[in-house]
Amino acid sequence: MATLVGGIEAGGTKFVCVVGTPDGEIKDSVRFPTEAPEQTMANVFKFFDQYDVKVIAIGSFGPIDINEDSATYGYITSTPKPGWTNFDFVGAMEKQYPGVKILWTTDVNIAGYGEYKAGAAKGHKNVLYVTVGTGVGVGYVQDGKFFQGFSHPEGGHMLPRRYPGDEFKGVCPYHGSCIEGLTAGPAVEARAGKKGHLLAVDDKVWDYEAFYLAQACATYTVTFRPDIIVFGGGVMKQEQLFDKIRKQTAELLNGYLDTPNMEDYIVHVGLGDDAGIKGCLLWAGDNL
Amino acid sequence: MATLVGGIEAGGTKFVCVVGTPDGEIKDSVRFPTEAPEQTMANVFKFFDQYDVKVIAIGSFGPIDINEDSATYGYITSTPKPGWTNFDFVGAMEKQYPGVKILWTTDVNIAGYGEYKAGAAKGHKNVLYVTVGTGVGVGYVQDGKFFQGFSHPEGGHMLPRRYPGDEFKGVCPYHGSCIEGLTAGPAVEARAGKKGHLLAVDDKVWDYEAFYLAQACATYTVTFRPDIIVFGGGVMKQEQLFDKIRKQTAELLNGYLDTPNMEDYIVHVGLGDDAGIKGCLLWAGDNL
Ligand SMILES: Nc1ncnc2c1ncn2[C@@H]1O[C@H](COP(=O)(O)OP(=O)(O)O)[C@@H](O)[C@H]1O
Ligand SMILES: Nc1ncnc2c1ncn2[C@@H]1O[C@H](COP(=O)(O)OP(=O)(O)O)[C@@H](O)[C@H]1O
Ligand SMILES: [Zn+2]
Ligand SMILES: [Zn+2]
Repeated sequence: MATLVGGIEAGGTKFVCVVGTPDGEIKDSVRFPTEAPEQTMANVFKFFDQYDVKVIAIGSFGPIDINEDSATYGYITSTPKPGWTNFDFVGAMEKQYPGVKILWTTDVNIAGYGEYKAGAAKGHKNVLYVTVGTGVGVGYVQDGKFFQGFSHPEGGHMLPRRYPGDEFKGVCPYHGSCIEGLTAGPAVEARAGKKGHLLAVDDKVWDYEAFYLAQACATYTVTFRPDIIVFGGGVMKQEQLFDKIRKQTAELLNGYLDTPNMEDYIVHVGLGDDAGIKGCLLWAGDNL
Repeated sequence: MATLVGGIEAGGTKFVCVVGTPDGEIKDSVRFPTEAPEQTMANVFKFFDQYDVKVIAIGSFGPIDINEDSATYGYITSTPKPGWTNFDFVGAMEKQYPGVKILWTTDVNIAGYGEYKAGAAKGHKNVLYVTVGTGVGVGYVQDGKFFQGFSHPEGGHMLPRRYPGDEFKGVCPYHGSCIEGLTAGPAVEARAGKKGHLLAVDDKVWDYEAFYLAQACATYTVTFRPDIIVFGGGVMKQEQLFDKIRKQTAELLNGYLDTPNMEDYIVHVGLGDDAGIKGCLLWAGDNL
């Protein structure tokens, strides 16, 4: 049988474990809710115990420690999720699977990697991936490597200018009306009184949404200077947002700097909900 | 005689040419105003014709093309400065000095490199350098390499939230009240009616200044995740700004993510006005 690699998309609400080929073909997968670490890891082990893989790539909810020089590298750090604070995820995997290489990054980075290798950003060098789902997360792949500094980007927590007359306070527990607090799914729900998928495509909520996400795009443009900004996550299933965001991003930048054409620059995911698990397999495959 | 390297700090108002040792000791330098390219380059050649150097590092005003795959790599691109639009700076140097390695980056990056190697950021891996002078420029050195994507960062052109009641429109020709339009030297002068060095240290202008620069620092923190933010440029000679910026940056981040201590995180240049020319020599030295 051909070489198999493994992946874990470890989200705050659900886990997906996958095995497949190094070029991203899924052979088997399982998904289960994120419970306390003991039950959750028991499910993870039950799945991977069946397979002989050389590499397992993990894309995890966070915040996580990705600094290889740190004593807590491989840990989920200060999450409010019960039981997971300071959980040594990489350590648990290495103990269970000695000799298997365990790769470790954020859930957002891994989806960005999928899009970079096989999705909407294929062929681009500097790929910014932004998910607007339960939160707003940012991952940046440059030449196949994950951008990081002191730690991984937290580009959902910037403070945009307010839409004139918008008094909605935002739902980020830390910043109220940061990008995440104004645009992620829970913000849409708090503002509209129902979940985003139940709203009309011309609901006023989407004007706010585009207004704030365009500011995020303008700021990502002057800081990261990506070749492409790929949007994923549940909220971005509202396709009508894209043209609004493109138009307003261009207006905000006002011709100050070169960017690719907006149509090619701000795009929707190519792999849909598979970006994360494909990203795991492809990243694992590249590290065989 | 020991090996010499060269550098050019090519600013929009003045040029500084330097030769020195690969570890940054200045042996000779000359400065002259930035005129049209012919006169300016004649002055550059007059200086370097005297020396036998292996490498010359250029840190240039911009925007510049730093993409090595581009047909206009080494050019100053769309500057409003008369005569310099689409000037092939690297080409002119290579023609005059065949066999000499010509290095090319932004004026901000090169000052950041100086601070990274020998200044306030010595020993840090991810160094964000921000100059607040005639404009606001951002350079980012990661592990000794300059961060770039589609092009170099333009992190001075983000749109901050307004100080309550502040009606000053800002002076950026593209964005009005972006960070540069609100905080660079010309903004201070337009707001106050006189140049910054003539204002009292407790002038209200510095409250606005700190308010906006703290927002910039908060955004740089969640995007770039630097280990340290080093501020240089004429306006930052107002040392009283630093404590205000530190305090307000911490308030904006509100404990959401880990940063170094604010005292060590947001700091003034260590090399003063020499950051750029030292940076040139050190970068050239590292590329011998
Ligand atoms: N079609 C849709 N339109 C708008 N919002 C949606 C849609 N589908 C899901 N969402 C919202 O997206 C969020 C979930 O995002 P998702 O990316 O699926 O998960 P997660 O971020 O937890 O990985 C929820 O708040 C949900 O209400
Ligand atoms: N001590 C000072 N306090 C406030 N502003 C200053 C001071 N010194 C210079 N400036 C302002 O800084 C700007 C020049 O910045 P500088 O960094 O020296 O040059 P440049 O950005 O052109 O390389 C001018 O607008 C000047 O008024
Ligand atoms: Zn927030
Ligand atoms: Zn601007």
